[in-house]
Amino acid sequence: MKKLKEILSKIKIPDPEFTKKAQEKLDGLTKPQGSLGRLEELARQIAAIRGDLSPGINKKVVVVMAADHGVVDEGVSAYPKEVTPQMVYNFLAGGAAINVLAKHVGAEVVIVDIGVAADFKEDPLLIVKKIGRGTANMARGPAMSREQAVQSLEAGITVAQDLIKAGYDIIATGDMGIGNTTSSSAIASVICGVDVESVTGYGTGIDEKGFKNKVEIIKKAIQVNKPVGSDGIDVLSKIGGYEIGGIAGMILCCAANKIPVVIDGFISGAGALIAHAISAESAHYMFASHCSVEKGHKIVLDKIGLKAMFDFNMRLGEGTGAALGINIAEASIKILNGMATFSQAGVSEKSE
Amino acid sequence: MKKLKEILSKIKIPDPEFTKKAQEKLDGLTKPQGSLGRLEELARQIAAIRGDLSPGINKKVVVVMAADHGVVDEGVSAYPKEVTPQMVYNFLAGGAAINVLAKHVGAEVVIVDIGVAADFKEDPLLIVKKIGRGTANMARGPAMSREQAVQSLEAGITVAQDLIKAGYDIIATGDMGIGNTTSSSAIASVICGVDVESVTGYGTGIDEKGFKNKVEIIKKAIQVNKPVGSDGIDVLSKIGGYEIGGIAGMILCCAANKIPVVIDGFISGAGALIAHAISAESAHYMFASHCSVEKGHKIVLDKIGLKAMFDFNMRLGEGTGAALGINIAEASIKILNGMATFSQAGVSEKSE
Repeated sequence: MKKLKEILSKIKIPDPEFTKKAQEKLDGLTKPQGSLGRLEELARQIAAIRGDLSPGINKKVVVVMAADHGVVDEGVSAYPKEVTPQMVYNFLAGGAAINVLAKHVGAEVVIVDIGVAADFKEDPLLIVKKIGRGTANMARGPAMSREQAVQSLEAGITVAQDLIKAGYDIIATGDMGIGNTTSSSAIASVICGVDVESVTGYGTGIDEKGFKNKVEIIKKAIQVNKPVGSDGIDVLSKIGGYEIGGIAGMILCCAANKIPVVIDGFISGAGALIAHAISAESAHYMFASHCSVEKGHKIVLDKIGLKAMFDFNMRLGEGTGAALGINIAEASIKILNGMATFSQAGVSEKSE
Repeated sequence: MKKLKEILSKIKIPDPEFTKKAQEKLDGLTKPQGSLGRLEELARQIAAIRGDLSPGINKKVVVVMAADHGVVDEGVSAYPKEVTPQMVYNFLAGGAAINVLAKHVGAEVVIVDIGVAADFKEDPLLIVKKIGRGTANMARGPAMSREQAVQSLEAGITVAQDLIKAGYDIIATGDMGIGNTTSSSAIASVICGVDVESVTGYGTGIDEKGFKNKVEIIKKAIQVNKPVGSDGIDVLSKIGGYEIGGIAGMILCCAANKIPVVIDGFISGAGALIAHAISAESAHYMFASHCSVEKGHKIVLDKIGLKAMFDFNMRLGEGTGAALGINIAEASIKILNGMATFSQAGVSEKSE
């Protein structure tokens, strides 16, 4: 708890003066003012976060937090539980979508076993921070203890802290965990204060019968555990997952260290909701990459006050959307740093 | 006209069998089927275009077609006409937004003087295909002759042909030309069959009074010239621009050579409308990158049957949106080519 408290005490809102100055800088570049729209917004947000009008994005990383979910016993997923460790091996071998997309944008991939129900051989890309071998079945009681929830947040903090120390200046969140849309929908329902149906989707591809069961199980988990929406740690412990806690911890750590953090889809969004419930100020450091197919993601983003960069009808997780989001954030910074000004280029300005 | 006819005779619809086979390949990769949404759509469209289930994207280029517009004499732009050549120099010096964004995505930039009202020193990045020193003022008569319209199309064809011969396997369109939103709105109004107001925007940033004038001038240009919407060459000659013809020619050439062509914003969209009016089949080779702020762009895309990849509230032109679009197209191809299959990775498939 000490580590979490320390991080929380460091989270401050970025200086709006830098937002203003960054826009002034953008307005002096050879283009009609504001004509790069969202790229300009991203650039000034990153400048404000970094407190730097020429911020660099030099080392990029996608962190995939992997864990299992006891609620899978209730038949909520189209894929068997074994897929979580199988996919971890696929990440380590470089064969998954996140490996391809991270490489495409020049980002490293780091995998964190924060609670997979299997053990792995040592691997330079694998960080082991196991809180447990999967959560307990939330349909029958809390997914984890409050202490474990804090541990998962602090594991995420430690991972992000080490990466920031190693020079990474933008971090993207990713997830792997069969059953984790179930947990994420439960979190979204409780924290956003909306009914379960409006934030529950088809996950990796369940059928209509499976969907009805999923909704029932989520309702049961909420009824059994009675999580308090305003208490992020309570929600995380009762209906969350270790990887969701790890993602929330990473986000809080990025906010405390003035590092932009790119949020992936629905599961990362649930992590962002937990982080936001714990520290509303952390939202200033978040960048929503894509809007997921998963029903409820838009509601999650609205709750935090985030606007997705793009909507590609994706629903894979792993950080795949966030990897592409890193690339767009980087483009915005290159605009801020790399374009000629009107006077440098000898280009006439707008006639008044 | 011979070159244009030859190109048109070569444009065929891509083989749908490849679309199907590409999807089958995507379905064998370690991810829930369809979970990469738009990326999968792009990958299978490119596979079908190339007739190759493992197509490469190896050499990328953004072509910026630059030209002047006589209609600028009517006060339709917020910037003086001199900005066209000034920006060409900025492109050649590497200081413009398109230079920064093309470099970001690993693409070359080529500038084509297809009708700027100024002359340039020789430069390895500059291709000179000047049809005239700016078009005539379309508010008082045709912007160019029918012969010049064909010349501009054929200039675009030649530029694209040379790039394809040099090994470029994806081409993005870009534009520079003070006054060219005025011409593009006129084209959109005539070809889409909608009123001028619904496809006219604020360009680089005119005020309310300037906007009303712009609408009046466009209406006048249409009234004076009476372009026939179904005849792309007639529309281009009467109310078009040399760069718009060049863009249309490039698109037709890409379609004839089975090369994906990434369309930028509103001006490139007007070029795409001309290409589509001349050869509806060419649409199968087009990729709409962003949806522009410029009013009417959505109507243009709908007319052609294109769906923009993203909406960043951009309105700069130059190919800035298309450069980012190249990057997304490339990501989709890396997914198709670079991921492990379920059997390769030893990952369990969905339980039925």
